[in-house]
Amino acid sequence: MEKLPVTVLGATGLVGQRFVARLAEHPWFELAHLAAGPRSVGRSYGEAVRWSVPGRGIPAAAAGLRLVAAEPGAAPAPVVFSALGAERAREVEPAFARAGAVVFSNASAFRLAGDVPLLVPEVNPEHAALLRVQRAAREWPGAIVCNPNCTTAILACVLAPLQQAFGVRRVLVTSLQAASGAGAPGVPGEELRENVLPSIPGEEAKLAAETLRLFGSLRDERVQPAPLVLSAACHRVPVVDGHTLAVSCELAGDPPPEVVRETLRSWRALPQELDLPSSPAAPLRVHDAEDRPQPRLDVDADGGMTVHVGRIRRCPVLGAQFVVLGHNLERGAAGGSLSNAELFRARGWLG
Amino acid sequence: MEKLPVTVLGATGLVGQRFVARLAEHPWFELAHLAAGPRSVGRSYGEAVRWSVPGRGIPAAAAGLRLVAAEPGAAPAPVVFSALGAERAREVEPAFARAGAVVFSNASAFRLAGDVPLLVPEVNPEHAALLRVQRAAREWPGAIVCNPNCTTAILACVLAPLQQAFGVRRVLVTSLQAASGAGAPGVPGEELRENVLPSIPGEEAKLAAETLRLFGSLRDERVQPAPLVLSAACHRVPVVDGHTLAVSCELAGDPPPEVVRETLRSWRALPQELDLPSSPAAPLRVHDAEDRPQPRLDVDADGGMTVHVGRIRRCPVLGAQFVVLGHNLERGAAGGSLSNAELFRARGWLG
Amino acid sequence: MEKLPVTVLGATGLVGQRFVARLAEHPWFELAHLAAGPRSVGRSYGEAVRWSVPGRGIPAAAAGLRLVAAEPGAAPAPVVFSALGAERAREVEPAFARAGAVVFSNASAFRLAGDVPLLVPEVNPEHAALLRVQRAAREWPGAIVCNPNCTTAILACVLAPLQQAFGVRRVLVTSLQAASGAGAPGVPGEELRENVLPSIPGEEAKLAAETLRLFGSLRDERVQPAPLVLSAACHRVPVVDGHTLAVSCELAGDPPPEVVRETLRSWRALPQELDLPSSPAAPLRVHDAEDRPQPRLDVDADGGMTVHVGRIRRCPVLGAQFVVLGHNLERGAAGGSLSNAELFRARGWLG
Amino acid sequence: MEKLPVTVLGATGLVGQRFVARLAEHPWFELAHLAAGPRSVGRSYGEAVRWSVPGRGIPAAAAGLRLVAAEPGAAPAPVVFSALGAERAREVEPAFARAGAVVFSNASAFRLAGDVPLLVPEVNPEHAALLRVQRAAREWPGAIVCNPNCTTAILACVLAPLQQAFGVRRVLVTSLQAASGAGAPGVPGEELRENVLPSIPGEEAKLAAETLRLFGSLRDERVQPAPLVLSAACHRVPVVDGHTLAVSCELAGDPPPEVVRETLRSWRALPQELDLPSSPAAPLRVHDAEDRPQPRLDVDADGGMTVHVGRIRRCPVLGAQFVVLGHNLERGAAGGSLSNAELFRARGWLG
Repeated sequence: MEKLPVTVLGATGLVGQRFVARLAEHPWFELAHLAAGPRSVGRSYGEAVRWSVPGRGIPAAAAGLRLVAAEPGAAPAPVVFSALGAERAREVEPAFARAGAVVFSNASAFRLAGDVPLLVPEVNPEHAALLRVQRAAREWPGAIVCNPNCTTAILACVLAPLQQAFGVRRVLVTSLQAASGAGAPGVPGEELRENVLPSIPGEEAKLAAETLRLFGSLRDERVQPAPLVLSAACHRVPVVDGHTLAVSCELAGDPPPEVVRETLRSWRALPQELDLPSSPAAPLRVHDAEDRPQPRLDVDADGGMTVHVGRIRRCPVLGAQFVVLGHNLERGAAGGSLSNAELFRARGWLG
Repeated sequence: MEKLPVTVLGATGLVGQRFVARLAEHPWFELAHLAAGPRSVGRSYGEAVRWSVPGRGIPAAAAGLRLVAAEPGAAPAPVVFSALGAERAREVEPAFARAGAVVFSNASAFRLAGDVPLLVPEVNPEHAALLRVQRAAREWPGAIVCNPNCTTAILACVLAPLQQAFGVRRVLVTSLQAASGAGAPGVPGEELRENVLPSIPGEEAKLAAETLRLFGSLRDERVQPAPLVLSAACHRVPVVDGHTLAVSCELAGDPPPEVVRETLRSWRALPQELDLPSSPAAPLRVHDAEDRPQPRLDVDADGGMTVHVGRIRRCPVLGAQFVVLGHNLERGAAGGSLSNAELFRARGWLG
Repeated sequence: MEKLPVTVLGATGLVGQRFVARLAEHPWFELAHLAAGPRSVGRSYGEAVRWSVPGRGIPAAAAGLRLVAAEPGAAPAPVVFSALGAERAREVEPAFARAGAVVFSNASAFRLAGDVPLLVPEVNPEHAALLRVQRAAREWPGAIVCNPNCTTAILACVLAPLQQAFGVRRVLVTSLQAASGAGAPGVPGEELRENVLPSIPGEEAKLAAETLRLFGSLRDERVQPAPLVLSAACHRVPVVDGHTLAVSCELAGDPPPEVVRETLRSWRALPQELDLPSSPAAPLRVHDAEDRPQPRLDVDADGGMTVHVGRIRRCPVLGAQFVVLGHNLERGAAGGSLSNAELFRARGWLG
Repeated sequence: MEKLPVTVLGATGLVGQRFVARLAEHPWFELAHLAAGPRSVGRSYGEAVRWSVPGRGIPAAAAGLRLVAAEPGAAPAPVVFSALGAERAREVEPAFARAGAVVFSNASAFRLAGDVPLLVPEVNPEHAALLRVQRAAREWPGAIVCNPNCTTAILACVLAPLQQAFGVRRVLVTSLQAASGAGAPGVPGEELRENVLPSIPGEEAKLAAETLRLFGSLRDERVQPAPLVLSAACHRVPVVDGHTLAVSCELAGDPPPEVVRETLRSWRALPQELDLPSSPAAPLRVHDAEDRPQPRLDVDADGGMTVHVGRIRRCPVLGAQFVVLGHNLERGAAGGSLSNAELFRARGWLG
């Protein structure tokens, strides 16, 4: 299979760097253009980026690329990955779609637009069918495909097999989110020292709306939000990478912990069936040790694409309880977005 | 009022140091003896302790005291504060009670014994009546009085006014607990670096059992546990001091957030009425800023005795939702135990 | 003594908040105006500030003040404290001096100007005489008086008695600086997590130049830099507040550690003689415990105004070696600047 | 080449785990026995270990091994790696040497014994000749070979090319050492939170004595310590892995920074010549970016075996100045010890 050239928008940020690291050695895609803000255009990526992927240097395939403007003329490619902020994305992503690119976007700008698929290949690959609606409505030769917010993506990977096996009725999730999830410029250095920030602006609403959409059903060319009730309390904790989620939920039929555990452990989804290159052999890893998963020890396993579940037990209030861990920059951002593109390529939807 | 001499057991540990710091300048009590383990006996407190109360040195009244063994003969006093571990407490505390001392214990050893008051003066001062039962049963001239586990103490201070005003039916609490709550030797240094530990052995069971007991009713000389259902998920986070609790609860009558907020804000309890020296003017501080309370900024207010509440809002699953913060070593340990002693002194129960 | 009204410039930043906290309860000064950037003008301080002084709330005397523009017309006062960034300071501070105010500035803008006193009252109070030169040259009815960079201020407090007693020839200092020293917006949250940043732009040059100036001699209305040689290596470490300095130095006469220790321990300076309200009873605290001073345990002692010294020992290379700790926001910024103003008031130089 | 069976002593500790991780996939050695303390003997490694190597699970080759006692009868192998504490090592390592094993020890017990090679293959491979002395004196069929303390090993890798090219006369080193260097049980969790510990018991003396020995010359079957003067100030900082060293040094001939940089950058040593499997292509990586190396971003490169150097510049006091970073558990412990064994195997000294 010939490699498809790709453009990365917002290539110098934390998520952008993860896209670059993944794409530099990808079997199906090839870095063609890296785009950044006006102050960086014209400089080489190696000079302009404040590289911060732990344990590995700037990939040779990227270091020498000259940064270009985030415009289709300057960075033409059939596939585009967007690590832009929401505001910039609202302008720039449609320009690329209009120019014919399929834009896989990590931005929040279009996630809840009625004709844009909000997609996690393990969870709702059938929502890709919305593209027909999008193309009819917008008349773009290209398209925009979104992945959800990092916390939503991680949670959805655990709720999906429970939804399929039992039906999820009510979810109460308390998040302990990592510093790197805040994006640039992120939380000021001194605020998150030995501290817990008890709110993350907008996060709880996103988590609820996006989860209901991911589990929604596609009817009459629209996604009807799932009828589940979700309550979220989001916190920022002093951890570099990795969101921990304490979850209680009510499942139809109230299955006992062993059944929940076995359901999660044995789950395989479409990316496993299609053997997509960024997907691990199993989407979930169920831990038996009482003190796992832990962000520092577990989050980097399998390149950060595995979602970890532990302490599966009865919740006296809602029925089922467990703890979840996932990598916010990988599973929850760059890796998730890239999985969408791999799904599209595997399905033959990228021309 | 003449000062009563007191003994501190386990004076060199993290909680013991907080007892020493508080008692060194207390208007009603006076440090008479400091007891420690065999390796320290005979050394001066100043030499033996690895002092770690931030921002203040070893109190002059304590530095020169020679450490004695944890035995009534070596450390006689009418009032004893115990910062011992559970195992040691099981032996040592009865010895002091038998010798006539009233032991205010922070240890878990006797917390759930049927004839021992588990007491938070703001929450259940009437449980002190169990002392009659204890004395009848054990024939000690002294007594043992316990304060709850740090997490329980902090949670109970917020649930108390809600219980009084509405009735609490179901509670789902996710804790983000500080490193210093682990006691000595505590969590190894490298484990809690940029990490979340997803379980704290025994903590969830303690939190449930002790909360039900605190809110239980005294009937026929026994405490009937309250009929509320509590589900807990406890985590250790990289914070020095201060436990954060994300709480959702179902209250009878389902009061709206404004009513919950006003109930918490206006609450005053017995320690305020009696003007006990370690109690702040109001037991709770309700924060309006979305990003407060924060452990680093708020936990030391009022010597760590205030419990903080923030983000009072509707929970789509259980009805009411908020975040709580309290100082695990002060409100949740040394300060709480000392409040019990102040209540006893104010009531004239210390001879 | 009647309180003098004062204006704080840059009142919402980290250093500005420390000024506000100190001035809200100062015996000689009174908060009259708080100035901030254009986005905040018109709002009350309580609403506009992201208050982050640990353990205490926004002072009542400040919370209700309406923020004004950083212009002499909007914020007239005989005394002004400036927590502005260097660029803003270059414009705004002269405007206030021209309008008659004595500006005590924490900014770097004028620190090395030939006619501006760079002052630490414990170290070089005689440099205040430069004011005559400044007034002659600039014809301002007011004046600008600077305190040094935080690291310099802390180091100078320890070198001063050694310079007086022996003469300091060569100094090699390695700093381990706190996150809060970076000012706003500071180090991005994820950068200083479990990390050491091995450089702080501009810091080493500032430390050398300002130290030589502080210890310089005033001759012919100019400060001749001291003839000492200083080599610095500055690092940012994951600590909220408190700069630690590992110092080796060559002293004339090569005094043994006991003599160095006693020189530091017994040192008293002009602020102690004048009993200035922000100065502790002794400028230095010498620690005997091998494992002290520690930022978390010691930096807040005496409101952060004491400089701590420990581990005084022989250096096989340069002769004398020790470790120093000081509070970068207090001793090294707001408290230091306020000490300058107190010196001026005590001397009767504020009209 | 057939794999040699090996035993790991102290296999459950932090360094022991690193040995296990490296040996589980080593081309020349094969895990035969894992030894641990009496409480763990008989359990499988997978059950007994609190595994904490980030990003990877317990190797399959180790998980099922049953832990044995640290005795030659229970764990016979021609090659032994020791991650024991000093006290245990003093007894156990000679027992294995007496039984015929070559013990590569990370313990401090025998590092300064006159007949034991203290070895870093990049630095002083010729000291291996001491084995003849050891065998003559002790009459062991096996032997003990030590690697230095973690800080010494890292420093020595940078001083070696400077010593070879110029001669090192005086060194002033300030260390910022990681939490994981403290071994088990390590620094209590709450001590190293937002804190700097200004001393590490015994470390400065070790660093001086071991460095002088590493650079010493072998004459008359003894190592004469090198005539360089070293002054050290050691600190513990809140970093998981990776020791940072701020170094100033006086080199013969006072070479300018460019020459120092080129000397370090172009250096290749015996492990590179022999192509030892654990050694990177170059022992040092010289960074040009002002803000590198950083522990979090750089320490894991090349499995933690590369030593990083940055900010090479003039020191106004001693002449040359730079910052060094190395992995304390890998380059400074397990990886260093394994390199010694690889050198021995490559040289044909392991029978």
